This record gives sequence, structure tokens and C-alpha cells, in this order.
Amino acid sequence: MTAPPIVHGGGIAAAAARFGGRPEDWLDLSTGINPIPAVLPEVDVAAWHRLPDRHRQDETRAAAARYYGTPNALPLPVPGTQSVIQLLPRLVAAGRRAAVFSPTYGEYARVLGNAGVPVDRVANPAEVTGAHGLVIVVNPNNPDGRLFSRETLLDLHARVAGEGGLLVVDEAFGDMRPESCIAPLAGEGRPGLLVFRSFGKFFGLAGLRLGFVVGETAVIERIEDGLGPWAVSGPALTIATRLMGSDTTVIGRSIAARKAALDAVLTGAGLTVVGGTGLFSLVEHADAAALHEALCRRHILVRPFDYNPRWLRFGLTPDAAGDARLAAALAEGMAGR
Amino acid sequence: MTAPPIVHGGGIAAAAARFGGRPEDWLDLSTGINPIPAVLPEVDVAAWHRLPDRHRQDETRAAAARYYGTPNALPLPVPGTQSVIQLLPRLVAAGRRAAVFSPTYGEYARVLGNAGVPVDRVANPAEVTGAHGLVIVVNPNNPDGRLFSRETLLDLHARVAGEGGLLVVDEAFGDMRPESCIAPLAGEGRPGLLVFRSFGKFFGLAGLRLGFVVGETAVIERIEDGLGPWAVSGPALTIATRLMGSDTTVIGRSIAARKAALDAVLTGAGLTVVGGTGLFSLVEHADAAALHEALCRRHILVRPFDYNPRWLRFGLTPDAAGDARLAAALAEGMAGR
Repeated sequence: MTAPPIVHGGGIAAAAARFGGRPEDWLDLSTGINPIPAVLPEVDVAAWHRLPDRHRQDETRAAAARYYGTPNALPLPVPGTQSVIQLLPRLVAAGRRAAVFSPTYGEYARVLGNAGVPVDRVANPAEVTGAHGLVIVVNPNNPDGRLFSRETLLDLHARVAGEGGLLVVDEAFGDMRPESCIAPLAGEGRPGLLVFRSFGKFFGLAGLRLGFVVGETAVIERIEDGLGPWAVSGPALTIATRLMGSDTTVIGRSIAARKAALDAVLTGAGLTVVGGTGLFSLVEHADAAALHEALCRRHILVRPFDYNPRWLRFGLTPDAAGDARLAAALAEGMAGR
Repeated sequence: MTAPPIVHGGGIAAAAARFGGRPEDWLDLSTGINPIPAVLPEVDVAAWHRLPDRHRQDETRAAAARYYGTPNALPLPVPGTQSVIQLLPRLVAAGRRAAVFSPTYGEYARVLGNAGVPVDRVANPAEVTGAHGLVIVVNPNNPDGRLFSRETLLDLHARVAGEGGLLVVDEAFGDMRPESCIAPLAGEGRPGLLVFRSFGKFFGLAGLRLGFVVGETAVIERIEDGLGPWAVSGPALTIATRLMGSDTTVIGRSIAARKAALDAVLTGAGLTVVGGTGLFSLVEHADAAALHEALCRRHILVRPFDYNPRWLRFGLTPDAAGDARLAAALAEGMAGR
């Protein structure tokens, strides 16, 4: 049986249909995206008009290599990391299993399972065995922020690659923790190592559909072949080249400030932050479902988890007004109203 | 052995590297894209910022249903038809073959062949047999413009579907010949029929990466599942919704005028136009390779065909200056200079 699509964050339209209000008036905290989109650079007419040619892609790849610190490898631009998750089943050798460090982003287990790959949800590296031809680690993890050190990941990689397997490290939320990222090591082309990066989350441009993959050349070529030519739009390539080549410290500082403000609101409301990354916070609450609904009634959407009824994930608020609105809604919601 | 990537139109950077000149100074006639991009509507910040949600997709699907004349079916937006070609191998039942009406767009045979699907290149409907689980017709065809009538296609569909197969009709160049398009019939959800449409060619926005698929619901769902969520960028959805909902007669007239001007230049140079669509013309010439190179030396890129050394495909020139430049280059090139 095919697992149904996961209901992801971002479903403001559905929430508004149920709880009222215009979608644009909702405060959407259901995703882990920088709430303050980077200022868009000018996009030349040719980027919209022509098929994105090799030259445009090469510029983006060079900018990504500098941004991700992979001087020896040009990261492959892809139309969102999701597009590569869709291709993962074909990277698992017949008869082998996948290990997904869980709980995590649900699409990995869903896509692999639907393709008939047996999936083991694992919690620590000791559970990974020679049976696993594909191992998935989201690092830092979504939603709990669990962070493996580079050393742990390299040990794991050595074991997985030693059995001819592939380790995928999804660093979608890694931009705020560059010291923990192994993209630079994957850029050395080690066999059996693949790193995913997200462009849209840090830069606040998720609608662009852009991510990057760094790793073993032979695997990158199979991904390129699976996606086909011109997979990424011209405007996405152009915007990424410009933004990755610009000074991103302002963006990083803005995200850090928003994260601090969010956590102040959450703890101020008496909630316990049990995890998170630079782009979201995970809260544990005895009756998270009731709190989720109380927030919905006030047209604030956060992310519940069907597998853990005590968890809620809060994305960053865009500004102080958002903080105040969230604080007021939490005060009422926590009081059972 | 895996077939290497096809060298498609659009390789201005490579041509400029070989023949000199700045890429932006070349006259690119190597693609079949409207040379005058539609005026871009304003794109709201949320389209760039957020993951494209269901509501935004639904608006685009409704606009596409009106534009393609499929009131009973909402065309599925995809990130370029190429992304669906990549998924075709999984739509062929094990042990069955594919028939591709040829010569045509090379990606069909390449992707299917690389995935291990036996491909028969056929020239007329009588060659399609019960062994063919997938049949591909580009209509009107690229590069020769061969056009099957609706009746011929429906007869073919009845035979293919009667054997449990799937007929794919690629109407990428159909916008200028709506009376020949069967997208409206595919929109009735007939089993075994799938129609591809291109957004970027007619609207001159190929860099957006957008196409649509109409057809049998079960197959559309498999394609959606293969692409995964948020496959199409927010700006692409937004721009398509606006442009498909606007009056497109001006675009159609502009393309028709450019096509007439191109054919006047080609015939004026003594060339024989043997085929084409509203967006390109196919020329037969005894030494097409020499003419191709002569044009390259004048920084004009057209499309040669390795399988037919007598053919060159010319895309539309953007304006009268382009016509004059092409005419002068052809006059010199035809004189062997």
C-alpha cells in the first residue's frame, strides 16, 4: 500500500478554510523558513526567457562552492532537495535496506517505503548495520535539533561506505551551524557520502525551489541523469549566484535575533523548548493538540506531529508584532481559552 | 551502456567559446521558443518566500484548464515537460516496449533506453503493435512539423489503450494549432491517454521551467507521486496563472508575424523549408553542416541534426534587425563564404 502524502507545514489555506480568516492574515509558523526573505537581486530577462544553459549553471555552482566551502567540488543545483529524495530509491542496491535516523523529516521514509525499500527507523549509529545500503541523517535534525558531530558522522560514513553503502547527510538547516557541516568533506568526493543543502530556508526563498547536492561524483551523475536537463529554473540559478556571493552575515544575524525573540516568547509563556535549530524551536507540552487548536483559533499555525502528541514546532516570527501576537495567543491558549 | 546527454539547442556559451563573440551578442535560433518573452506580471513576495501551497497550485490549475480547454480536468503543473519524460520508464509495464514516432525530440528515446525499456522508432501508426505499452507522439512534431489529425490520434489511442497501453501526445508546439490539439479530449480522463503541454515555448519563458500534463487520473497521480510535493516554483505558478488568464491573441499574432518573416528570409535565401511549426522552420540543404558552420562564424546558432545531415532547424528571429542579420549571413554562407 502506498503511504499517503504527508501533510507538511505550509498548509495555511487549509487551516484558514477550517478556522476562518484570510490566509494572508494568518501568522504562519508552520515551516522552518527564514521569515524575512532576502532582498531579491535583479533577474535578467534571459534568465526567464531562455533554457538555463551550462554557463548559467556553472556560475551558480561556483558561487555555491564558495558559499558551502567545497573548493574541490561544484555542488549540483537541484529544484529543491525534495526532488533528490524522490530519486533515492534507485540509489539503494537491490536487497539492501535503508536506515533513517528518526524521528525526522517524513519524506525520506515515505518515498523509500513507497518504492519498496525496507526502512529501519534508527536512533543512534550503533543500530546501523551492514544490511543498510542507504543511511539518512538530517543534521541538525528536524524537528528536535539533534546534532551529530563531524567525527560521529565520519565514523558512521566509514562504516557505511566500507559495506558499499551510501550515507546521506541532509544539512537543510546547517547554514546557522557551519562548524558542524560536513559539506566541505563531501566536496572531497569521498565514495559513499552525499550531502544535501537547502537554499530556500536560510535565504527565506523557499518558493524558488532550489537546493544543492555535494558528494561522490558517480552518485551526483546518477542524480543529474535522474533529474534530466534544465531541472532548475533560470531565475533560481541567477538569484542564488548573486545572493550566495554577497555578504550573508546580516541574514545570519537577523535569523539569530528572530530565534532569540521566539524562544523568549515561548519560555515567557511557560513552555519548555526541548530542541530546535536556528530556524525553529521544538516545544514539549502535555496537551499539544489543544494548544495547536487554540493557536489556530487565533489564526496562528504551528506544526503538530502525529507521532508525538506532546510536540509542537514553532517557526520564527517575522517581527516584534509577530512576537507580541504569539505571546498573547499563547497566554490565552495556555489558560485553556 | 548509457546514452550520453543530447546536445540540445541553447548551447550559445559553447558555440561562443568555439567561434568567438560574447554569448549575449549571438543570435540564438537554436531553440523553438517565442523570441519575444511575454511581459512578466508582478510576482507577490509570498510566491518567492513560501513553499507553493495547494491554493496557489489550484489557481494555476484552474487557469490552465481554461487555457487548454479542459473544463473537466485540472492540468497538473510540472517543472518542465522534461521532468515527466524522466518518469516515463516507470509507466511502462515490465516486458513491454515503447514506440516513439521518429525522428523527434531525442529525450524520449534516450531516457527510455537508458532505463532499459526497448524502444522502437516508428514512422506511422500501422507500426504500433500490441507489444507497445507506451507510445509517444510529438504533435505537431519537432523538428519536421508532421501533424496527425485528431481522428488519427484517437484511432491510435483506442488501439493502444485497448491493449492496456499508454499513449502520450506531446503538444509542446500545439499552442499555435489549438484545433489539432487533443488536450481537451485527454481532459475527459480517458484511460491510457496523456497529453503534455509546454508553457515556456509559446509565452517565451522557457527559463521558468513549467509545463502541464492532462490525462487519466491514475497516471497523473503516479506522476505527482514521482515528482513529489512543491515540484513547481511559486513564481512559475503565479506568472502562469496571470498570463494564461490574460488575452493571448497578441502573443499569437506576434509569433505568426515572426514565423512569416523567418520563412521569407529562408526562402529569399534560396533555402527550401520542408517543415516546421509556428515556432521554428526546418530547412533542407545539401550541405547543412557547412551552412551551420558558416552561420556560426557569423555568430548565429541554428540546430543541426546528427541523424540527418541535410537538415537545419531555424528558430524565430526576435525582430526585423534579426531578419536582416540572418538574411545577410545566409547570403554569404550560401555563397560558400
